[in-house]
Amino acid sequence: MKQYKVGLVGIGAVGTEMVKVLRQRSFPASEIRILATRDRDEVVAGETFHVRETAAEAFDGLDIVLFAGTEGSKGASKTWGWEAVRRGAVVIDNGDDFRMDERVPLVIPEINGDALARHQGFIANPNCSTIITLMGIAPLHRANPLRHMTAVTFQSVSGTGRAAITELDAQARAYAAGGAVTAEAYPHPIAFNVLPQIGGAKPEMPGFTSEEAKMTFESRKILGVPDLRVGCTCVRVPVFYAHSVAVHAQFANPFTAEEARAILAAAPGVRLVDDLAAAQYPMPLNIQHGDDVGVGRVRVDPSVPNGLALWVCGDNIRKGAAQNAVQIAEEMIRRGLI
Amino acid sequence: MKQYKVGLVGIGAVGTEMVKVLRQRSFPASEIRILATRDRDEVVAGETFHVRETAAEAFDGLDIVLFAGTEGSKGASKTWGWEAVRRGAVVIDNGDDFRMDERVPLVIPEINGDALARHQGFIANPNCSTIITLMGIAPLHRANPLRHMTAVTFQSVSGTGRAAITELDAQARAYAAGGAVTAEAYPHPIAFNVLPQIGGAKPEMPGFTSEEAKMTFESRKILGVPDLRVGCTCVRVPVFYAHSVAVHAQFANPFTAEEARAILAAAPGVRLVDDLAAAQYPMPLNIQHGDDVGVGRVRVDPSVPNGLALWVCGDNIRKGAAQNAVQIAEEMIRRGLI
Repeated sequence: MKQYKVGLVGIGAVGTEMVKVLRQRSFPASEIRILATRDRDEVVAGETFHVRETAAEAFDGLDIVLFAGTEGSKGASKTWGWEAVRRGAVVIDNGDDFRMDERVPLVIPEINGDALARHQGFIANPNCSTIITLMGIAPLHRANPLRHMTAVTFQSVSGTGRAAITELDAQARAYAAGGAVTAEAYPHPIAFNVLPQIGGAKPEMPGFTSEEAKMTFESRKILGVPDLRVGCTCVRVPVFYAHSVAVHAQFANPFTAEEARAILAAAPGVRLVDDLAAAQYPMPLNIQHGDDVGVGRVRVDPSVPNGLALWVCGDNIRKGAAQNAVQIAEEMIRRGLI
Repeated sequence: MKQYKVGLVGIGAVGTEMVKVLRQRSFPASEIRILATRDRDEVVAGETFHVRETAAEAFDGLDIVLFAGTEGSKGASKTWGWEAVRRGAVVIDNGDDFRMDERVPLVIPEINGDALARHQGFIANPNCSTIITLMGIAPLHRANPLRHMTAVTFQSVSGTGRAAITELDAQARAYAAGGAVTAEAYPHPIAFNVLPQIGGAKPEMPGFTSEEAKMTFESRKILGVPDLRVGCTCVRVPVFYAHSVAVHAQFANPFTAEEARAILAAAPGVRLVDDLAAAQYPMPLNIQHGDDVGVGRVRVDPSVPNGLALWVCGDNIRKGAAQNAVQIAEEMIRRGLI
C-alpha cells in the first residue's frame, strides 16, 4: 500500500486529535510532520514528535497537509495553505478562511465526496456544527429534498479550543471550592450558564453570528442547494465534548418517522439512538470521543407541511473536525486523487 | 387595604419561592397557611411556619390557595383543588393537571389577564417554559399575529425540583473531587451533558414529550389561537436557575428588528438585553432570581416569510412559576374578582 507523508499544522485540541485519528484509523502515513509556531520536541497523543517551526520549505516533500486551526483562529492556512499546494501537497484545512472559496471543495465524505474530483489541491473541512447537523439531514435529503431547516445548537467548549476546556474545568472546580469564577475564553462564565453567541456579528446576515451564518452558507455548498433556507441559533453550553443540534426540517414530500429512521439507520457514519420511552437518545456523554454522529428524537413535526424534527449529536473535535479531515484524505486516496 | 388569607400547598422549590415572592411584593396577606404532607414547624424563606397536614378542613377560611406542585408532580391539586374552591377559596394551581380544563383559565397576567373574568374559582399557572417563551412572543403577536413558531428550550434543573438542584451540585462536586457521578433525578448525568427529554412520551403528539406538547397546547389557549402551529424541542441543560428558549417565529406581516425591539422594550415584565457586538444578551447568570423575562438576539430570520428570531430567558421558579402565580392573585384583586 502506498504511504503518504502527512504534515500537520497546529497542535491544539484539533491537531492533537488528528494525530490520534491518523493512528486509530491506521492511516498510511510514512511520516507525520508537525509544524507549529516554534521548534521543540513535544509529546502529542502519546508519541514524541520533533515539532518544526512553520516555514515554506518545511512543507517540501509532503503529500498531504492538514491545517488544524480551530474555528475562527486565523492565520496558518491563510499564510501557508496555497504555498503548501505549490510545493506539491494536497491541503485539507480545518479553518474557516477558504470554505466559501469557489476553488475549494467543502467536503463531508459521506455526503459530497464527489466534490473532491474538482479539487485544485486545497480542500476545506466544514464547520463542526454544520458537519454534525448535515450528517443527520443529508441522508434524508437524498431521499426527499430538504426545503427548510431551523437548527438550534448546543455546542461544547472544546469547539473554542483548549483554553475553553481548561476554563470550564476551572470554573467547575471554583464552584465546588466556593471560590471566584473568572472568565477569559468567553465574555461570560460558561459553567452553569448558556451563551447565545458563537462567533462575532456577521454583516451579511444582520443580527446573526458568524457561526449561524456558516450553517446557512456551508449547508448550501455541501448539499449543492444554493437557495436552501436555513434558520439558525448557535448556543454555547457547559459541556466539554460533542455538539448537539435540535433540527426542525421541512422536506419536499412527507416522511413518516419510521421511514426517516430506516434511512438514518442505514446511513454510513450515523448511529440511530431513538427510544424515548427507554430514555435513549444521543447526548454528549454517550457520543463524545466516538466516531459516529448520533441521531434520535426522530418525529414528524406536524406544525409545518412535510415536517420532521430530530436531535443530532456528534463529537465536534472528531467528526466535527479531525476525523472528517482525515476521512477527506482517505476518500481522496480511495478515489485515486492523491 | 383588604387583607387576604393565603394558603400554600407544598414547600418544595416553587412553594418556598412563593413565600419569598409574597413577601417581596408586599402581598396583602393577613395569613400565610402552609399545608404539606405532615404537621411540623419549618423555616421557609427565613420565617418559621407551623406547617399543617393537608386535609379538607385545613382550607377553611382561606381566600386564596396556591398549589405549588412542580411540573409533573401529581396529586395535591387533583385531590384538594376543587375541595378548596367549594370551601370558598380561589385556587391558583402551578401543576399541570387542569391547565387544559375548559373551566380553568390559564393565565399570564401581562398577556391574558382578561381570561380571569370567566373564572370558576380555579385558575391554572402555565408551564414554565411556555410562560417564558410567550413573555417574549405575546407582545409581538399583539402587534402582528403569530403564525408559527419553533421553540427550542434550554431548561434548568430547578424546573425538576430540589432533588435535581442537589444532583447537579453533587455531580459538579464529584467531578471536581474526581469521584463517581450518580444520577437519580434524571435517567442520565446532567453535569457537562444535555438531555433532549423533559417529561414522558405524549401519545397525542407521537414522538414528542409532555413538555413539548405543553408548548403547543398551552400557547394556543393563552394566546387564544386554537390552530396556532408550534414546533418544539425541550432540552435539559446543566444550569441551576432560568430557562432559555431559542424562538424562530413567523408572523402575518413583516417585522423589522427595530420594530420588534421597540415593542419588546415597552412590554411590561420584559427586559430587552440586545447588543450582540457588546456580547449583551439575556442568559441564566444575568436573569436568575430576577422578575423580568429577558429578550435578546432579536433579528429578522430571512429563511421564512415574515420571520423573526429571538432568544428569551427567564427564571423558571419565579416568572415561570411562583411569581406568575402571585401575579395572578394580584391581578384578580386589581380586577375586583377576589
